[in-house]
Amino acid sequence: MSLNTFGHLFRVTTWGESHGPALGATVDGCPPGVLIDESMIQHWLDRRKPGQNKYTTQRREADEVKILSGVFEGQTTGTPIQLMIENTDQRSKDYSDIMDKFRPGHADITYWQKYGIRDYRGGGRSSARETAARVAAGGLAREAIKAMVPGVQITGYMVQMGPHGIDRDRFDWDEVENNPFWVPDAKAATEWADYLDGLRKSGESVGAIIEVVARGVPAGLGAPIYGKLDTDLAAAMMSINAVKGVEIGEGMASATLTGTTNADEIFMGPDGPEYSSNHAGGILGGISNGQDIVVRFAVKPTSSILSTRRTITKSGKETEIITKGRHDPCVGIRAVPVGEAMMACVILDHLLLHRGQIGENRGSIG
Amino acid sequence: MSLNTFGHLFRVTTWGESHGPALGATVDGCPPGVLIDESMIQHWLDRRKPGQNKYTTQRREADEVKILSGVFEGQTTGTPIQLMIENTDQRSKDYSDIMDKFRPGHADITYWQKYGIRDYRGGGRSSARETAARVAAGGLAREAIKAMVPGVQITGYMVQMGPHGIDRDRFDWDEVENNPFWVPDAKAATEWADYLDGLRKSGESVGAIIEVVARGVPAGLGAPIYGKLDTDLAAAMMSINAVKGVEIGEGMASATLTGTTNADEIFMGPDGPEYSSNHAGGILGGISNGQDIVVRFAVKPTSSILSTRRTITKSGKETEIITKGRHDPCVGIRAVPVGEAMMACVILDHLLLHRGQIGENRGSIG
Amino acid sequence: MSLNTFGHLFRVTTWGESHGPALGATVDGCPPGVLIDESMIQHWLDRRKPGQNKYTTQRREADEVKILSGVFEGQTTGTPIQLMIENTDQRSKDYSDIMDKFRPGHADITYWQKYGIRDYRGGGRSSARETAARVAAGGLAREAIKAMVPGVQITGYMVQMGPHGIDRDRFDWDEVENNPFWVPDAKAATEWADYLDGLRKSGESVGAIIEVVARGVPAGLGAPIYGKLDTDLAAAMMSINAVKGVEIGEGMASATLTGTTNADEIFMGPDGPEYSSNHAGGILGGISNGQDIVVRFAVKPTSSILSTRRTITKSGKETEIITKGRHDPCVGIRAVPVGEAMMACVILDHLLLHRGQIGENRGSIG
Amino acid sequence: MSLNTFGHLFRVTTWGESHGPALGATVDGCPPGVLIDESMIQHWLDRRKPGQNKYTTQRREADEVKILSGVFEGQTTGTPIQLMIENTDQRSKDYSDIMDKFRPGHADITYWQKYGIRDYRGGGRSSARETAARVAAGGLAREAIKAMVPGVQITGYMVQMGPHGIDRDRFDWDEVENNPFWVPDAKAATEWADYLDGLRKSGESVGAIIEVVARGVPAGLGAPIYGKLDTDLAAAMMSINAVKGVEIGEGMASATLTGTTNADEIFMGPDGPEYSSNHAGGILGGISNGQDIVVRFAVKPTSSILSTRRTITKSGKETEIITKGRHDPCVGIRAVPVGEAMMACVILDHLLLHRGQIGENRGSIG
Repeated sequence: MSLNTFGHLFRVTTWGESHGPALGATVDGCPPGVLIDESMIQHWLDRRKPGQNKYTTQRREADEVKILSGVFEGQTTGTPIQLMIENTDQRSKDYSDIMDKFRPGHADITYWQKYGIRDYRGGGRSSARETAARVAAGGLAREAIKAMVPGVQITGYMVQMGPHGIDRDRFDWDEVENNPFWVPDAKAATEWADYLDGLRKSGESVGAIIEVVARGVPAGLGAPIYGKLDTDLAAAMMSINAVKGVEIGEGMASATLTGTTNADEIFMGPDGPEYSSNHAGGILGGISNGQDIVVRFAVKPTSSILSTRRTITKSGKETEIITKGRHDPCVGIRAVPVGEAMMACVILDHLLLHRGQIGENRGSIG
Repeated sequence: MSLNTFGHLFRVTTWGESHGPALGATVDGCPPGVLIDESMIQHWLDRRKPGQNKYTTQRREADEVKILSGVFEGQTTGTPIQLMIENTDQRSKDYSDIMDKFRPGHADITYWQKYGIRDYRGGGRSSARETAARVAAGGLAREAIKAMVPGVQITGYMVQMGPHGIDRDRFDWDEVENNPFWVPDAKAATEWADYLDGLRKSGESVGAIIEVVARGVPAGLGAPIYGKLDTDLAAAMMSINAVKGVEIGEGMASATLTGTTNADEIFMGPDGPEYSSNHAGGILGGISNGQDIVVRFAVKPTSSILSTRRTITKSGKETEIITKGRHDPCVGIRAVPVGEAMMACVILDHLLLHRGQIGENRGSIG
Repeated sequence: MSLNTFGHLFRVTTWGESHGPALGATVDGCPPGVLIDESMIQHWLDRRKPGQNKYTTQRREADEVKILSGVFEGQTTGTPIQLMIENTDQRSKDYSDIMDKFRPGHADITYWQKYGIRDYRGGGRSSARETAARVAAGGLAREAIKAMVPGVQITGYMVQMGPHGIDRDRFDWDEVENNPFWVPDAKAATEWADYLDGLRKSGESVGAIIEVVARGVPAGLGAPIYGKLDTDLAAAMMSINAVKGVEIGEGMASATLTGTTNADEIFMGPDGPEYSSNHAGGILGGISNGQDIVVRFAVKPTSSILSTRRTITKSGKETEIITKGRHDPCVGIRAVPVGEAMMACVILDHLLLHRGQIGENRGSIG
Repeated sequence: MSLNTFGHLFRVTTWGESHGPALGATVDGCPPGVLIDESMIQHWLDRRKPGQNKYTTQRREADEVKILSGVFEGQTTGTPIQLMIENTDQRSKDYSDIMDKFRPGHADITYWQKYGIRDYRGGGRSSARETAARVAAGGLAREAIKAMVPGVQITGYMVQMGPHGIDRDRFDWDEVENNPFWVPDAKAATEWADYLDGLRKSGESVGAIIEVVARGVPAGLGAPIYGKLDTDLAAAMMSINAVKGVEIGEGMASATLTGTTNADEIFMGPDGPEYSSNHAGGILGGISNGQDIVVRFAVKPTSSILSTRRTITKSGKETEIITKGRHDPCVGIRAVPVGEAMMACVILDHLLLHRGQIGENRGSIG
């Protein structure tokens, strides 16, 4: 079957296909009393908008969100909030010649094998268009977090494009909003621009690695053992189209570290416990420790490239396929706002899960 | 709060602390009619047993499983199955001097901050002892899978210990059960033995990378978008103690690949679709495509090492801590059976989720 | 918090307020390949439509459903289906004078106490308008059931209006669609018409008892112990606005029966087991036994009546309130299609939950 | 499939068969810091114990509960709590002659039809023994409620045995613990004793109606629309073996009331809103309003009576069956502690669901 809802208390159900009338997010469990309106959510969708710069897909979508329920006189009511985005630019004709072929690297063949039916226009439900709904939900989550814990900052950025990584010594938070790649390294931004131009011309594509950091998150969030904060973050990021790996803190590199180098020692600061380092990425035993929560995920290169690929048809006949029209040399760029949105939804969910526990034996220290 | 259940239809709830009377798994949703008895599950626990060789922790546990419900005349009844393991070797005195200190790198501090109370003996609920319950559940899952889809093989093995990886050209499936590291590379097994001896003597520890492969899994498994097969596998592996990264197929390396090199082209084989390669790790759009499902996860080095670490006490006083007694130079070794168990549980869950769909429009090809 | 989703595999999330822009149902888990279009769902909404006859509330709603996702070329795709109904007749001015008062018997006061904010227009989320979304989802469920098990018939009807019950000896299935009350007793239909006219003139209201029967449902449906078929049906009916009691089979009267009179004895028929009677209402141990599934629920009289009631304001000041405008002498009439819709959703959910179990030891008899 | 967990945050999974080695409840999500030990839970089990008086089944069970996890130094840790009860008195020989026959009125036939296998000893999983696990979980829930909201009182009692109801004018809370029927009417207690003696001698059985009241529950609990407090209570009671009807407040009688007589008018008391009556049973729009929460449920007569019944065998052969040995003339008596336990679990679950909402706009009045 299908399962289109994520979250435990802050539950988001996305719906809609690439070429259907609309798509959206049904958000249930948002706390009441959060100040919200369409423009506040639109802000986050505009960051994601394709066609915004010459590096991302030239599909022109207004991506205009409407709030159809759950908000009254400018505040959330605690009832379900329907965020709808109508599809306006679909260019059906781009896809009609591939209705019987399965694009390699895409979900065409597996959707057919699972459901026995697939909306072949633009990938249907498997299209990255679905992530617009997540970004809308994430915009709402950010406002709810603000109301619960002011001071939380969620920022996503690219740390690698294809084989080219950033230089962490040049890391500059302010640079993130300053270039089309959301990369915190001005020099890399310039180099990547040239690199990407080359890819666009050659019709090739590359993958990317995106890092999302949540600062100011209080300690204690996470629901061990199977609702651990890192478990939910891993699931959230892995659910994004084209993601093939997720890391927390040192990630896969943890394997090469020794116990001595990997440990984050603890000492007392003016406001409570502090750590000598953050190899853990802000999560210990699945629970936040108050440090920056650091998540990274890898996006594979799009398989829709402008060269011929071998494939088969629905009836099993071998054939070839070539993608015309839209071509995204690095889909990873647009995953940045999506990663931020997922981080926001998971953090809010866990704030709600953690609060309201009885008694005053909340583990204070000092 | 806490969330100790994983799975959608095949639901496993683990319970029990490192030093409590017992621990176990309450398994709900196992199909009826599966042939099972305690020895079949014990087999998988014995593979995990500490003290089995000189490389893993010298804690001697019988790890003897009892089936307390849900099985009648040698078959599952479809009712909940309680798998219980009594704790027999606990050596409480090893831990009593650290009851007020938080061990760096462990969940001691975050459990205190979240719950305001913690069972300090051996890590309590955060201890890796909990994984014994998962291995038991995984043993049961394997039998149910056998009854549903004979031919599925689930195998886990180490591919890296500390900085030392295997040589894929020497890959030998038969070698996996032949050495204490479950490593499919005989030469690596020898080299790692020496390496680990050195670590034990120096009191240091390292991390590891484990790969788990499921062969013979039919296409069509996975519940898009938020119950995707890779989403559930990522969550499953990330929930294992000390895991910091999860990969599917090419994993984080997907970022550096190009669209051309990353694509798995499709052609027709005698039994249906076949692929030129498996960069995808057997999953497309969150749904299995019939190829080997390949998952990797990184385990960080244990923080319980035999050198002094700086930390604080519950009352915020700075102090030092040193681990005495049990010391595991590479906890990753014991994660191999755990990764296999999680793979089994997730595969079974998705077999159950996928079956029973209406009509005969199951997407056959050819 | 709020929880606006029901169902295990066939999951329906309703959203929308009485006076918001729209309301609807996000349906997840509908099997693929079900033939569906807007007119098939519209059929069920038209049966529910207020203003259809002089006995129900004179609010004129087009109640026109739009399918925004999840359907392609006339078939469900297995992806989420968004069923949206725009609100067109709202008469805000009817409610503006009561924005600070809590209507006795309604959820006004408890929504305020829980959320600290409420959409006071027409009851907001607590309004019975929400049931339009359920009826839409139920229309979809009926089509999916048809595709899985042709021959299932779901019929709801009134058995009591205020103190006036039907005469079961005059029971006639064909009469149900023949009168404005969906009552299977022609004589009662005539008597109730007069009775209701009197109530409308006096400004009074009464309750009702609705019975819903599902015929042709195969044996074996239900997920013991906490997903029993009767448990889910009880929850489904109790969730309908104004419902105060739910019964299965003999219901509350079971208490007065003896073991001898209550037992449904079993014998063999040509097609399998048959029963001497159906006191059980088609469910034994929470699982369907192949007989008619009989559920009854009681709807309390509406508290919006045309006489003055004592109440308080948000600030705690005692005052009086009187309902103007719309007045429904028997809201129970419109609960008939809602009860049918809930029955359909639960039956489909359990068909999906039950199928796909392994092996061929499905308990055949004979 | 099966679903053996109930609750949203306070999640109870029961396991175990009538004649298996043990049964129990895995309780997840209990808040940390609740003072608890085995004797506190044993207290509630002892009230339920069969063989306690001559009116209930003469099966002698120690029903001794053990806490296997989740409690440390006398307090809950917030981790899963395993409550286990070993089965000690099973008298297998009582059932062995019926292994191929289906007892009418029991779940034997439907369990066979659903699972294709059944533990025929004592009803296996469908046996009322399962309710012992619920009573244990309920005992734990009561302690957690005490820690969160002191002053909540949960009391269950019989209001009808067979055709004999109580006289509400003679209602006396103190009488509940004073007689073997938990009936708040001393005269009825005497009359029922004679009545039940007669039934035991004749081998007949009757049903019962149990009422459970929760006093002192704060307003605001419930998670509309599908997690309404009354929805969850209806599901909880309907899940109890042999229950066929559930009512809130006036229940099925709501149908006969008029809008005028049914309304609970609101006025201001010294501590907040008060009501002129409680027809609503303490719940409006699915949310508690601070008044007594009143739930009633009907238990059907046991089908295990000492007279011959017609039935069939697994192979479809018509035959007869007669119950020997244990015979319960009124199983409803033992449902009283079970109803209380379910009320406690649901109330606690909703206390946890409701708390921790943001802001200070909790709807205060006055």
